Amino acid sequence: MYTFINDYSEGAHPKVLKALLETNDEQTVGYGNDQYCISASKKIQDELGVDADIHYVIGGTQANLTIISHLLKDYQAVISTDQGHISVHETGAIEATGHKVLTRPHEDGKLTPAMIKDILDEHTDEHMVQPYLVYISQTTEVGTYYTLDELKELYACVKDNGLLLFIDGARLASALTQHDAPSLKDIASLCDVFTIGGTKNGALFGEAIVILNEQFKQGFRFQMKQKGSMLAKGRLLGIQFDALFTDGLYYEIGKHENDMALSIKETLKKYQFHIVFESTTNQIFVDLDNTILEKIEKEFKVSHIQKISPDKTRIRIVTSWATNQNIVDKFNTYLSEIA
Amino acid sequence: MYTFINDYSEGAHPKVLKALLETNDEQTVGYGNDQYCISASKKIQDELGVDADIHYVIGGTQANLTIISHLLKDYQAVISTDQGHISVHETGAIEATGHKVLTRPHEDGKLTPAMIKDILDEHTDEHMVQPYLVYISQTTEVGTYYTLDELKELYACVKDNGLLLFIDGARLASALTQHDAPSLKDIASLCDVFTIGGTKNGALFGEAIVILNEQFKQGFRFQMKQKGSMLAKGRLLGIQFDALFTDGLYYEIGKHENDMALSIKETLKKYQFHIVFESTTNQIFVDLDNTILEKIEKEFKVSHIQKISPDKTRIRIVTSWATNQNIVDKFNTYLSEIA
Amino acid sequence: MYTFINDYSEGAHPKVLKALLETNDEQTVGYGNDQYCISASKKIQDELGVDADIHYVIGGTQANLTIISHLLKDYQAVISTDQGHISVHETGAIEATGHKVLTRPHEDGKLTPAMIKDILDEHTDEHMVQPYLVYISQTTEVGTYYTLDELKELYACVKDNGLLLFIDGARLASALTQHDAPSLKDIASLCDVFTIGGTKNGALFGEAIVILNEQFKQGFRFQMKQKGSMLAKGRLLGIQFDALFTDGLYYEIGKHENDMALSIKETLKKYQFHIVFESTTNQIFVDLDNTILEKIEKEFKVSHIQKISPDKTRIRIVTSWATNQNIVDKFNTYLSEIA
Amino acid sequence: MYTFINDYSEGAHPKVLKALLETNDEQTVGYGNDQYCISASKKIQDELGVDADIHYVIGGTQANLTIISHLLKDYQAVISTDQGHISVHETGAIEATGHKVLTRPHEDGKLTPAMIKDILDEHTDEHMVQPYLVYISQTTEVGTYYTLDELKELYACVKDNGLLLFIDGARLASALTQHDAPSLKDIASLCDVFTIGGTKNGALFGEAIVILNEQFKQGFRFQMKQKGSMLAKGRLLGIQFDALFTDGLYYEIGKHENDMALSIKETLKKYQFHIVFESTTNQIFVDLDNTILEKIEKEFKVSHIQKISPDKTRIRIVTSWATNQNIVDKFNTYLSEIA
Repeated sequence: MYTFINDYSEGAHPKVLKALLETNDEQTVGYGNDQYCISASKKIQDELGVDADIHYVIGGTQANLTIISHLLKDYQAVISTDQGHISVHETGAIEATGHKVLTRPHEDGKLTPAMIKDILDEHTDEHMVQPYLVYISQTTEVGTYYTLDELKELYACVKDNGLLLFIDGARLASALTQHDAPSLKDIASLCDVFTIGGTKNGALFGEAIVILNEQFKQGFRFQMKQKGSMLAKGRLLGIQFDALFTDGLYYEIGKHENDMALSIKETLKKYQFHIVFESTTNQIFVDLDNTILEKIEKEFKVSHIQKISPDKTRIRIVTSWATNQNIVDKFNTYLSEIA
Repeated sequence: MYTFINDYSEGAHPKVLKALLETNDEQTVGYGNDQYCISASKKIQDELGVDADIHYVIGGTQANLTIISHLLKDYQAVISTDQGHISVHETGAIEATGHKVLTRPHEDGKLTPAMIKDILDEHTDEHMVQPYLVYISQTTEVGTYYTLDELKELYACVKDNGLLLFIDGARLASALTQHDAPSLKDIASLCDVFTIGGTKNGALFGEAIVILNEQFKQGFRFQMKQKGSMLAKGRLLGIQFDALFTDGLYYEIGKHENDMALSIKETLKKYQFHIVFESTTNQIFVDLDNTILEKIEKEFKVSHIQKISPDKTRIRIVTSWATNQNIVDKFNTYLSEIA
Repeated sequence: MYTFINDYSEGAHPKVLKALLETNDEQTVGYGNDQYCISASKKIQDELGVDADIHYVIGGTQANLTIISHLLKDYQAVISTDQGHISVHETGAIEATGHKVLTRPHEDGKLTPAMIKDILDEHTDEHMVQPYLVYISQTTEVGTYYTLDELKELYACVKDNGLLLFIDGARLASALTQHDAPSLKDIASLCDVFTIGGTKNGALFGEAIVILNEQFKQGFRFQMKQKGSMLAKGRLLGIQFDALFTDGLYYEIGKHENDMALSIKETLKKYQFHIVFESTTNQIFVDLDNTILEKIEKEFKVSHIQKISPDKTRIRIVTSWATNQNIVDKFNTYLSEIA
Repeated sequence: MYTFINDYSEGAHPKVLKALLETNDEQTVGYGNDQYCISASKKIQDELGVDADIHYVIGGTQANLTIISHLLKDYQAVISTDQGHISVHETGAIEATGHKVLTRPHEDGKLTPAMIKDILDEHTDEHMVQPYLVYISQTTEVGTYYTLDELKELYACVKDNGLLLFIDGARLASALTQHDAPSLKDIASLCDVFTIGGTKNGALFGEAIVILNEQFKQGFRFQMKQKGSMLAKGRLLGIQFDALFTDGLYYEIGKHENDMALSIKETLKKYQFHIVFESTTNQIFVDLDNTILEKIEKEFKVSHIQKISPDKTRIRIVTSWATNQNIVDKFNTYLSEIA
C-alpha cells in the first residue's frame, strides 16, 4: 500500500543522504558551530541577498516555540488563523511558553490585514494581552500560498501597526517554485523571521531559522539551548541544508512535489471530484463519496480530514520528494477505473 | 588534529548508519508509531525484563525537560548535585518549565542519601518548594558511576521519603559494562524513569526514555509533542536504537569507549599525572602543567575544565565509538615523548 | 457624578469594615492560618453541607490562575466561552501558567454541553491539547446565570466525559438569591471547585476558593504561595468573609444589588430601551441612541461595551452594595425626563 | 501571649486605618488609576527627586515575581544570596515564571561584588543561563543593611558588568532611618527598580514598586495584570501609601520599630546573650540556651530559626509598628528575671 498521508513518510533524498555518509567519520565541533552549518548558511545568505542570522533546529514545533518565545514579551500574543499549526496542532506548545494565540477564521487558508486590524481593535488595554507578532505559514495548512502581492500587503499592515511577522516555512519549497509567489530574496525584506523547512522537502529532519530583524538576533542560541532545540551533532543539520542549497536541489524537490500533485489533481478534476482549495502545491484537499474513498483505500492511504456529510468525506493527498511518476500514474489509472 | 573534546564529534557507528541507509526509501507512519520504534522497544524491554513505556527523543536536554516537567506538579522541585547537567548546562531549561533545581555539592560526582535528607530537612512548609524528584546521571558528569550497591541505597532513601528517581543515561553505555554497576535489568527496578543515551554511544542522535512507574505513563506523548520532543520521521530514532540493541552493539560500543580511555589513563598514570576522579569510563579528568598541555595541544584537542593554579590546568579527555587503537597509541606515544 | 461603571467603585460594606476595625490591634498568625479564616470557613462549610477545603485570595485573576494551574497537567486545557473572563480579560494569565483556553461563542453568556462535546470531538490525539477542565462564571459576563437545571445538565456532561468543572463566582451573590439558581448547597455537589466572590459583594477585596474534589485538595497552599496568592496578613480575608457569612449578609448584599438593578431595568423597559440580555442580576446591558447616552453621561457614568451602529451604543450599568435607592430614584427620574 | 514572631501580626497603623475609613464611601475608578494612587506616587516621587514609574501591589512575592519576570528575557537569570527571599521562601515563584536564581552564600546577609563577579566568571556561554539581574533586600533577611557606601560599590559593579539591580524593600523603612544607610533619594540613583514595603511597616498590605530604568517602564501594567498583581479596588493601596508618606509617617514607624528592637537588644547584650548579626534594625537573631528559651516562651512567642547545638537554639525576635514600650519593658524585665 502506498501512502499519500504526508510528506515525511520516507527518509532523505539520495543527495542529502550521500552528504551525510561522506562526512560521517569527520570530527567537528558540536552544537551547530561547525563548517557545514557555516557553509549552508553562506549559501542561504547568498540567495537572500541580505545579512541574516541563520540557525538550524530539528523540527517545526521546536522552531515555532523557540522563535515565538524569543520574539514576545511575557504579556504579548501571537496572531494566527484558526487553522494555524501553532494554534491547533502543537499541543499548546506556544501557550506552554506563556503566550496566547489569537485567532480569526482563515480565508482560503490565509490571514488577511482585515483580521489583524480586527484583533488590534479588540485589544485596547492592559486587561487583555498585547498582540505583537503575526504568524503565517507558506504554504498554508490547506495548501494555498501567499502571492508576492499578498505578502507585500500583509507586511505593510504588520509594519504600519508596529507588529512583527514570522513566516513558518515548513513547506516553503512548495511555494518558492510558484511563479507569483515571493522568492527567498523577496521574503528577506517582507518579514522579521522565517523558517526554511527541510523535513518535508528531502531532509531527514531540520528547519533553518532565518532572523532578519536586527533587534532579535541577540541571545537566540541561549533560547535554543533552553528550549531543547540545540542538536549535539549540529553538523547533521548543516550538512543536509548545505546539500539542499547546492545546485538548486531545494527548489528541484519542491517543484517535483508540486508536479506530482498537479498530475493527480488533473485526474481528480477530469472526473469532476470537488477540489476544496485551489492550489498548485503538494497538498490536495478533495471531497469524495465514501464509496469511492473505500475503493481508493484498497490501494492507497490518504488522510481523512473531515466528514462533510454522511456519504462524503474530505481527504488530503500529499506528495513528497519520493513520490515518483510511476506511483502517480498508477494512482491516476486506478482513479480512472473506479471513478 | 584529533579531538578528544567530546563523544559526539563524529557521525554514527557504521552499523547504525547502515540501518538508516537500508530503510531510507521505506514509507512509515510518523511520530514514533512505526515498526522500527516498536521493534527497538521490544528489544530494550527484553533486556529490562519488566513492562515499561519507551519513547524516543532527539537529545538530552529535550529528554530532561520533558521528563521532569511530566513528573512534577507546579510547586515541586528536583534534587541534583551542583554539577548535574540540568543544574548547570541546560540554560535553565528546567526552570523554563517552571521548576526549581535544588542542589548540594557533589561527592565524587555523585548524589548521596545524606544530601537528599538534608534538602528534605530544609524544606518543611508551603513557603518553600516541595522536593519530589531526585535526578542523577549514570555515568556522572565527572566520569564516575553509581555501583549497584550505591544505587540500591540511593533508591531505598528515595522510596522511604516518598520521592521519585530519574536516571539520566546520556552516557549509560559507559557504565553498563562495568562489573559492579547496575545492569539494565537492575535499573528497571531501581528508579522510576531513566534514559538510554544514543548520541554519545554510536547514534547520530537520540535518547530512549524508559518510564517504569505506572503513575507517569499516561499522557507522555502529549508532553513530548508540547515540548517539541516528537520527531516527524520518528522512525529514524527507532531504526538507530533497533540497531544499537541488536547483537549487543550498544554494550560493545560502551566497552570500546572505556577500553580506549583506559589505555590513555594508564599512560597518564605511568607518567604520574594527577587523575582527578578515579574512573574506568570514557571520561578522564587530569591536572596538567601548562607546559605539557601546550605540547599536547599541538597534536590533540582536549577540553579545559578549570584553572587549578597559574601553572596548572584541569583538562578532560573523552573517547567515543570512533576513537580507535591507532589514535590512542599515537597519543600514548606522544605523551611518553613529552612527559 | 455617580458611576454605574462597576461594582468595585467603593470600599467595603459597613459591617465588613467594622469587623476589620474591631480586630485591628489583635495579633494573629499570618498566611491564612488564623482563627478568623477558620471561623469563616466553618460558616461557609455549614452552608455547603459537605466537607471542603477553603482558601482565601485577594482577587479573581489570582484565584483563576492559581486554581486552573493546580487542576491541569502541562498539556491539558480549559474550556470556556469566548467571553469568559479567563479568555479575554486577564492578559493571558492562564496561558502564562502554560495552559491553552479553548473557546466557543457563548449563548446568552453561557457554555452548553453541546459546546463541550464539540471541543472534545475536535481534540482527538496528542498533537492537540487535552481538554480537561470546564470553566464557567456564575453570574456570567453578561449578567445571566445558570439555573439549577442548567447546572445539573452541564455537570452531568462534564462528568460523563471525565472532565472537571470550575465555577468562577466573582459575582456569585447576585445569582444565589435567584429562585431557580443553584444554592451553595447545590453547587457543592455540582462542580469540583468554585469561588465565592467578595470584592464585588461588599468586601474590600477577597475571593474564597472552595475545593470539593478530594483529588485536588493536596498541595494547594504551595500553589498559592508560588503564584503570589498568599496574603501575609491573611486574617484580613478571614475577617471579611466571616462578616459576610454572619447573619446572611452575603445574601443580603446580593439581593440589594439585584433589587437596585431591577428598579433601573424596569424604567429602561418602560421607555422601550433594548435590554440585550434578559437577566435579574446586578448587570444591565442596554443599547442606547447616542443622543440619549450623551444626556445620561452628563449625570451618570456607564461602561461603553460596543458600537452597535453609528448612532447606537451598547452600554453596561452595574449596581453595587453601595448603590442606594436614592441614587436609583434619581437615575430613574432623570431617565424619564430624557427618554 | 505576646508574639514577636513577625512584623505582620497586627492590622494597620491607626493613621492608615483612618484614611481607609474616611474614603470608604467614595467612588473611584479601579485598578490603581484613582486619585489616591496618583497622590501617593507624587509624594514618593518628591522624595526620590527623579522621575519614576510607581505601581502598587498587594504583597512581596507578587512584587518580586512580577518585577523579575518583567526585567528578564527567557534565558536570563537573577543573582541572589543563598538566603534571598526569592531563593528560599517563595515556593519557586521566580522559577515558575521561567527563571533560574543563581546564588552564593551570604556575608552578613549581604551580596558582594565578588559574588557577582564569581557568578559571571562561571557563566560563559549559551549552555548556561545568562546572569542579568542582581537582587538584594534592604534590610536583609538577617536584619543587616547595606550602607550608602556599600550600595554605591555594589551598583558600580552591577553597571560595570552591564547588569541590573533590583532592591526588595519589604523592610525598607527599617533601613531608611539608619544614619549611614542610603535615603530614598540615594536609592533613586543606585538601582534600576526597588520596592517600598507597606505590609511590614504599618499598612494592612501593599508594596510600592518604583521603576527607575526607562527601558523597563513600558508594559508593566500588562505584566501586573497577567501575574494577578492588579487590585480591583486599587485605591486601597494608594490611600495607604498616601497616608504613609504624609508627615513622615513611614519613617516614624520604621524608627519606632528599630527603637523597640534596640531596647530589647540592649537587655539581651546586658545578660551576655549571643547576638548573631550585629544590626540596628527591627530583627534580632540571638542564640539561646534551650532552658532560657523555654522560660521566654511561657510569656512570649519567638521564631525558631535553627538548632545550633543540642542545647542551643537560634531564635528571631521582630518588632512592628504595634510593638509598644510597655511590651518591651515587660519583656526586658522578664528577661532580667530569668537570665
